Amino acid sequence: MKSKAIFYHAGCPVCIAAEQSLANAIDPARYEVEVVHLGTDRARLDEAEAFGVKSVPALVMDGSAFHVNFGAGIDALR
Amino acid sequence: MKSKAIFYHAGCPVCIAAEQSLANAIDPARYEVEVVHLGTDRARLDEAEAFGVKSVPALVMDGSAFHVNFGAGIDALR
Repeated sequence: MKSKAIFYHAGCPVCIAAEQSLANAIDPARYEVEVVHLGTDRARLDEAEAFGVKSVPALVMDGSAFHVNFGAGIDALR
Repeated sequence: MKSKAIFYHAGCPVCIAAEQSLANAIDPARYEVEVVHLGTDRARLDEAEAFGVKSVPALVMDGSAFHVNFGAGIDALR
């Protein structure tokens, strides 16, 4: 069974670079990657915070949040 | 031809978690992943900084540095 990886972003330039390089590099044979735009899909904000996401872009894998560079604090999206 | 991805770390707990989840998730069919421990391999510090690496763990892909969470500033490794 594939593991799930969720890439949270908000459309910022830093987010787009991270999505194109990092999220797209994840092995599709082992991971199912979901991309969530928290700026337009605010209903997922609580879920993202529950995973420990504090800023975007962030990648949640194996139950841990990995923050990539710094695009925007999650509070700015509420 | 495979792209090259270089994961720079320094053995910190944040680095190890990022290596195990993020670096290991990269598609081996498309990327050749090199893992560099900057704490023990200080000869690679200048190269890492030239790629724009400011802290570890960081992943350099497609010529860009992606900093993951925050383990240690690169100046602390010199």
